[in-house]
Amino acid sequence: MLVIKIGGGAAIGEGGYTNFAADLAGIEEPVVLIHGGNAEFSELSRRLGMPPRMITSSSGRVTRYTDAPTMDAMLMAYCGKVNKRLVSTLRAAGVNAVGLSAIDGGIAVGRRKPVLRCAEDGKPKVLRDDHAGTLETVDPSLLRLLLDNGYVPVLTPPALGEEGVPINVDGDKLALELATVLRADGLLFFSDTPGLLRDRDDETSLIDEIDASSPESALATAKGRMVVKVEAALGAVERGVGRVVFADGRIATPIRAALSGQGTTVRRTRATVTL
Amino acid sequence: MLVIKIGGGAAIGEGGYTNFAADLAGIEEPVVLIHGGNAEFSELSRRLGMPPRMITSSSGRVTRYTDAPTMDAMLMAYCGKVNKRLVSTLRAAGVNAVGLSAIDGGIAVGRRKPVLRCAEDGKPKVLRDDHAGTLETVDPSLLRLLLDNGYVPVLTPPALGEEGVPINVDGDKLALELATVLRADGLLFFSDTPGLLRDRDDETSLIDEIDASSPESALATAKGRMVVKVEAALGAVERGVGRVVFADGRIATPIRAALSGQGTTVRRTRATVTL
Repeated sequence: MLVIKIGGGAAIGEGGYTNFAADLAGIEEPVVLIHGGNAEFSELSRRLGMPPRMITSSSGRVTRYTDAPTMDAMLMAYCGKVNKRLVSTLRAAGVNAVGLSAIDGGIAVGRRKPVLRCAEDGKPKVLRDDHAGTLETVDPSLLRLLLDNGYVPVLTPPALGEEGVPINVDGDKLALELATVLRADGLLFFSDTPGLLRDRDDETSLIDEIDASSPESALATAKGRMVVKVEAALGAVERGVGRVVFADGRIATPIRAALSGQGTTVRRTRATVTL
Repeated sequence: MLVIKIGGGAAIGEGGYTNFAADLAGIEEPVVLIHGGNAEFSELSRRLGMPPRMITSSSGRVTRYTDAPTMDAMLMAYCGKVNKRLVSTLRAAGVNAVGLSAIDGGIAVGRRKPVLRCAEDGKPKVLRDDHAGTLETVDPSLLRLLLDNGYVPVLTPPALGEEGVPINVDGDKLALELATVLRADGLLFFSDTPGLLRDRDDETSLIDEIDASSPESALATAKGRMVVKVEAALGAVERGVGRVVFADGRIATPIRAALSGQGTTVRRTRATVTL
C-alpha cells in the first residue's frame, strides 16, 4: 500500500496531473493520494481581493491568518478546483478515483486556538476565528473501506475542527499520519525539486539515500525546512512505514521513477532490519 | 431509504444547513443528500468578474454557457464551499457525512455537445468547449457501499463527461435518477417555496397532494417549470420511488415536516397500489 502526496506548487499543474494519472493507471498496489493546492489558493485569493495576512505567533512562527472568508477560498481551491480536476484526470485515465477532504467521514480532526495572540505588521494583536490549526487525530476507516473495494481515495486538507468548522492542517503531516496508521509500504512526497538537496539552489546536490539506522550525517547537513522533512520521514520509518521518498513531481513517470530509486529515499538499510 | 435534494438558492443558506443537520441527526433511515449551489456559484462568478453568458439553443432553450473557467468556478462553489461547509455542519450535528461530487467513483456520467450551434445576444454563434451537458448514466455502487457502512453521502453536481472533463448536469435530474435506481422510499425536494403552487406568486395556493394514478387535474393546472417537475415526479413514482415531496427548505424541521405531509406529496393512492 502506497501513500502518495502531490505538492500544491504551481510547477505541478494540470499537465503534471496527467503524468500522475497515466503512471497510477499502471500500478496494481492500493494507493491513497493526498494533494495540496497552495498555488491555486493564492491565485484565487488574489483574484478575490484577499491578500494574505501574515501573522507571527508568540513562538516566532510566521503563518497566514485564516479567517472564515479565507477558509472559504481554501475550500474552493483545494476541495473544489484542484480535487475535482485531479479526480477527473485520474478517472479519464482509468483510475477509480474518489475525491474527499479530510473533513469527510471524520478522516482527520484538528484543533485551533480560539483566541490567537500574535503580531501583525510588528503590532501585537488578539485575533479570533482563526481556521488554522494542528492535526489531532486521524481515522482511516473510510479510506480502508474504499481501498478494500477497489477505489483510489484522493484526499485534501482541510480537516474538521472540534466545533464543526474546517481547520487548515498541513498536508505533509496528514500524509505522514495516514501512512503510519495505514502501515504503508511506501510514502512518496512529490514536489518541484528532484528530492532533498544539500544546497537548495543546486538541483545537482541531491541526497540519494538516508539510512534511518544512522541518520546523523543527513541531519548534520540538513538546513531549515529540510530538517523538519528529514525528522518527519525518520519518525514515519521508525513507526513502521517501509520507506519515505522525496521525489520530483515534474517528470513524465513520477511514481515509477520514485519507486525505482530516483529522488531521496529514507529507509532502514537491509542489514539493520535483519538485526 | 430517502433521497433528499436541497436547492442551491440563496434562501437556504448556512442557517438552513443547521436546520437540516439537526433534523437529519434524528432520522435513522439511510439517507443520500444531494445539494445545489447556484447562489454561491453566481456570487463567486460575479466576484471573479465572470458575468453569465446566456445562450439560446437551436430548440429555443436559454442556458448559461459553461466554458472551462466557468466550470472551475462551479467546482469551487458547489464541490468546495457548499459541499464542505454542509458536510462540516452535518458532522458537527453527529451525522456521519461524506461529501462527494457526482464525478467521484463514477457516480454519474454526462454527455456534452463538442460543438454548440446557438445564439448569443441574438447573433448566431458556434461555441466549443461547453461544459454543460445531459446526464447519461448513474452508478450507485459507491453510494450503496457508503450507505451499507453507516455513512450519509452528500452529493453535488457536476458529473464526469466521457472525455474526462466535468459536465454541469441538473441536480434535480441527478436526484431523480439516483432515487429511482436506489428504489428510494421517498424523494424530497427542498426549495424556497412551500411546495408546488397553483399560482407561483401566491404561497397560499399550495397543491397538497397529486395522485400519481390520476394526475390529469394536477397537470392541467401546472404551468412552466412546474410541468417539468410534476412530470418528473410522476415518472419517478411510476418507476418505483415510494413518494416524491416538494417541500419548504426554509423552516425549522424541514425533513420531519415534509415526511409528515407538509408541502406537495406525489404518490399513488393506497387504493390504486393494492389493485
